[in-house]
Amino acid sequence: MMSDASQFLLPRGFRFGAAKAGLKASGRTDFALIVADAPASAAAVFTANRVTAAPLAVDKEHLRATGGKVRVAAINAGNANCAAGQAGLEAARATCAAAAKIFGCRPEEVFPSSTGIIGVPLPAEKLIAVLPALAASIGPELDHFEQVAQAILTTDTVEKTAFARLEIAAPEGESREVRIAALCKGSGMIHPQLVPHATMLVYVLTDAQVEPAVLDGYLRQAIEVSFNRISVDGDTSTNDTVLLLASGASGARIDAGDAGFAAALTQVCSSLARQIVADGEGVSHVVELRIEGAASDAEAVKIAKAIAHSPLVKTAWAGCDPNWGRLMAAIGYSGAQIDPLRIDIQFGELQICRDGGRAPEFDEAAAHAYIRQPKFSIAIQLHQGAGSCVFWTTDLTHEYIHINADYST
Amino acid sequence: MMSDASQFLLPRGFRFGAAKAGLKASGRTDFALIVADAPASAAAVFTANRVTAAPLAVDKEHLRATGGKVRVAAINAGNANCAAGQAGLEAARATCAAAAKIFGCRPEEVFPSSTGIIGVPLPAEKLIAVLPALAASIGPELDHFEQVAQAILTTDTVEKTAFARLEIAAPEGESREVRIAALCKGSGMIHPQLVPHATMLVYVLTDAQVEPAVLDGYLRQAIEVSFNRISVDGDTSTNDTVLLLASGASGARIDAGDAGFAAALTQVCSSLARQIVADGEGVSHVVELRIEGAASDAEAVKIAKAIAHSPLVKTAWAGCDPNWGRLMAAIGYSGAQIDPLRIDIQFGELQICRDGGRAPEFDEAAAHAYIRQPKFSIAIQLHQGAGSCVFWTTDLTHEYIHINADYST
Repeated sequence: MMSDASQFLLPRGFRFGAAKAGLKASGRTDFALIVADAPASAAAVFTANRVTAAPLAVDKEHLRATGGKVRVAAINAGNANCAAGQAGLEAARATCAAAAKIFGCRPEEVFPSSTGIIGVPLPAEKLIAVLPALAASIGPELDHFEQVAQAILTTDTVEKTAFARLEIAAPEGESREVRIAALCKGSGMIHPQLVPHATMLVYVLTDAQVEPAVLDGYLRQAIEVSFNRISVDGDTSTNDTVLLLASGASGARIDAGDAGFAAALTQVCSSLARQIVADGEGVSHVVELRIEGAASDAEAVKIAKAIAHSPLVKTAWAGCDPNWGRLMAAIGYSGAQIDPLRIDIQFGELQICRDGGRAPEFDEAAAHAYIRQPKFSIAIQLHQGAGSCVFWTTDLTHEYIHINADYST
Repeated sequence: MMSDASQFLLPRGFRFGAAKAGLKASGRTDFALIVADAPASAAAVFTANRVTAAPLAVDKEHLRATGGKVRVAAINAGNANCAAGQAGLEAARATCAAAAKIFGCRPEEVFPSSTGIIGVPLPAEKLIAVLPALAASIGPELDHFEQVAQAILTTDTVEKTAFARLEIAAPEGESREVRIAALCKGSGMIHPQLVPHATMLVYVLTDAQVEPAVLDGYLRQAIEVSFNRISVDGDTSTNDTVLLLASGASGARIDAGDAGFAAALTQVCSSLARQIVADGEGVSHVVELRIEGAASDAEAVKIAKAIAHSPLVKTAWAGCDPNWGRLMAAIGYSGAQIDPLRIDIQFGELQICRDGGRAPEFDEAAAHAYIRQPKFSIAIQLHQGAGSCVFWTTDLTHEYIHINADYST
């Protein structure tokens, strides 16, 4: 389903661009636009944090007002526009009004997003000043798309994009190609709990023709097993947002229940979610947690999160230390239903713990060698039921401390 | 209530000692005894972690069997005797049996404790081998007491002890002096949730005469505002234990509802709780969180814990960074009832945030100077109700990573 031929990657019906508004201290591009040729069907999910950034309130108002239509996504990095009171809302609205004027749409058809430091007023005038030139520069090519992927980064070290294509059988017996392209940013303050759960900004674009309500169903299903199954530091952001736009430009209509579209969307979301974890702040190990035999999937996720948020577990990983006792402690305080004497743990193919105690075949040197790898997998079997989950997380390193002890001042 | 005259510090009716059993790689003392001259009234609370160390299971059995009487507390450091299956229980029981034989008591009157690495079999034979010499060396002096305080340490850098004395009016019009002395260890894996919540081992001794059930009431009350109000790393241990022993040797009887005794006990517990935080792994800042105006005390604690467990907040503190936006994010995802626009934040006397946004008088340089101090206070007013709490926590430093990335291997 993947293609590296750039001309076939991008969904039709969108244009992209980025500019320097002067919000990033680095002087890099920090303001980006995704513009649909005509109002696109939109579905969005946002953070469960009760402190939310001003653009999220504006986004929700706008989606309600339009019944799920978006013409322009306007995204700035370098300032989260959060904890900024009434001035924050006004800054977001002023940006929307300016974009609406340029693109000849309603302000409600503009979807603003912000990411960066919390608690510092957003200078909307800087965004508005560069808008005309930015609007004049947008285009449909992969290069334009990548400008957006670059501009929205904060502590991220790499751009994060994902693509999928699928053939949709048309009623008249022909088939039509549907494309999905997505980009995102996210590196720290990563523990999305999107509502039905999102400092992660994600934009997923397709040229399928999908009604907003149907699009929403697909989005909720896809995020549950992708963005809601990752954590870098356990800090749920005030700004997390996933926006899915469908331009309809492929002419292929997708109704509810299309397994192929659902799978392609989930694949794209999972790819981005894993890219975020791999680019997590200071990460030296990416860890896949496979929790099996839990009383329910929700219980499995509870255990995965307790492990993913344990500083002692994460520092052990940073030190390539096969100290599985710390895993046991985290499982124990997760709140999930367990029987300590029935817990089995594997590092990859290596049996580490059996029946809650050190496995007879435990080989510390082999375990140590296994978790020296930059990416490894830990499987935990609880023998409580049929619940399971796959969760992606990271270690906790000196570099994470360095990045986060010197961010604002 | 405090005295520095060592002969008046220790409750009468107890003897103490420590020895080297060879469990600590450092070769330091690692096995300690607290011995009551006669069976003492006992109350204990243990960790809420569902994975618990073998000695905790044995302790619970023993307290039930004796109706709350303890003659000997036998404590080893260097091995947690946790996740060790049946062999772990056998190791704990063998140690109790050996101690019972030496001291001429029932094995059920022995209270074992372990702290150290999880998942490594405890070599009980090493403990049993040194028991006779250790038993012969115990004594009632402050020096003996301090031997125990030293022997039980793991990653701790200092001994932690606290003392209190109070006069109890006797029925016949005289008054009798009651003494309380306590010692503990704890530095990492510190987020006690003792049941009614405790890798913290705490031993509180008094020579008051108190029935076990009454003693239990006092203990539960005291821990709730002391050990259950601290966190270093958010990792709730498998071994946390608080044991309160009353020898009765003062001849002063304490019934339920004695405010003086309750206050003295709480003072001792609070002192130890703060000593644990101050000696937390890698700590460079101790932070007092004062949450006020919450919907309930439980809601206030929920917010304090979200802040205390946020890597982003803790690293900002490590960097002396007054990035209060991270506090807002943690408050928002705490799950507590809040109105983001009514949140006020003070660093000491400095107003940082008012009505959910940057306070007009916010002075970044002053805020930075304030949190450069090794110990500082953050007050958060929520304007939701009368709930409040005081909670003690720490920053997250390079040293924490260093300590925990190199512990087992």
